[in-house]
Amino acid sequence: MFGRIHHIGVAVEDLDEAVALYRDRLGMPVRHRETVPQFGVEAALLGIGEGHVELLEPVTADTSVGRFLERHGPGMHHVAYQTDDIDSALDSVRAAGLELIDERPRSGILGSRVAFVDPKSTGGVLTELVEPAGASRSDG
Amino acid sequence: MFGRIHHIGVAVEDLDEAVALYRDRLGMPVRHRETVPQFGVEAALLGIGEGHVELLEPVTADTSVGRFLERHGPGMHHVAYQTDDIDSALDSVRAAGLELIDERPRSGILGSRVAFVDPKSTGGVLTELVEPAGASRSDG
Repeated sequence: MFGRIHHIGVAVEDLDEAVALYRDRLGMPVRHRETVPQFGVEAALLGIGEGHVELLEPVTADTSVGRFLERHGPGMHHVAYQTDDIDSALDSVRAAGLELIDERPRSGILGSRVAFVDPKSTGGVLTELVEPAGASRSDG
Repeated sequence: MFGRIHHIGVAVEDLDEAVALYRDRLGMPVRHRETVPQFGVEAALLGIGEGHVELLEPVTADTSVGRFLERHGPGMHHVAYQTDDIDSALDSVRAAGLELIDERPRSGILGSRVAFVDPKSTGGVLTELVEPAGASRSDG
């Protein structure tokens, strides 16, 4: 159903500071930076092998990541698993009886299609499915 | 410094239930199961691509993962990055000014050598370095 861990998502208070930590101290190259208004975040993707660390600074306090920061402070926010067919992956997840936050895929960073599974279904782990741009079997 | 995301560590209250969730509902095969007394956990490694989800049930409440569960409930506990030379990786991390929980590697699951970085140095993310058994450049 899933190919690999695509990224871990990390909630941060200051994106520039967090980028500097991961780039300069942990040696991960910055692969992309983007404001993703539909998720209320400014995001940076740092490379680690074929995967990524996704740093997320909320654009306002009244966003999902903003509320997470207020409740928990900075730290790990979610894990994302890569699929090349998110529609089929969502069908499988639904058939397995898991509750979805997103019944249909939404647009994510870098033109990806993403959907979140309700952490109540996954032992408290906010779990994202991500189909990177161009990965869909039905493309082209 | 790091090759890839080796695993995400997830604190769980019931290992059998959590294994069933990841294996039967999320389609990840069980690759290994082991009690790791030095970390006070019973652990299972589920495969996802070249990486893993590591499920951790504390053996008693008075352990690091036990205290995590009491404070936060079940959910993501740490991220582990793979290195083929943990001694050199620890030198780099130390030289970058990050605080370590483990100044020297400890024995981890499946004969690996592991060390944790203080989450105060890494934006609240408990970060593990792992050198899998047989990965060291200095091995035989």
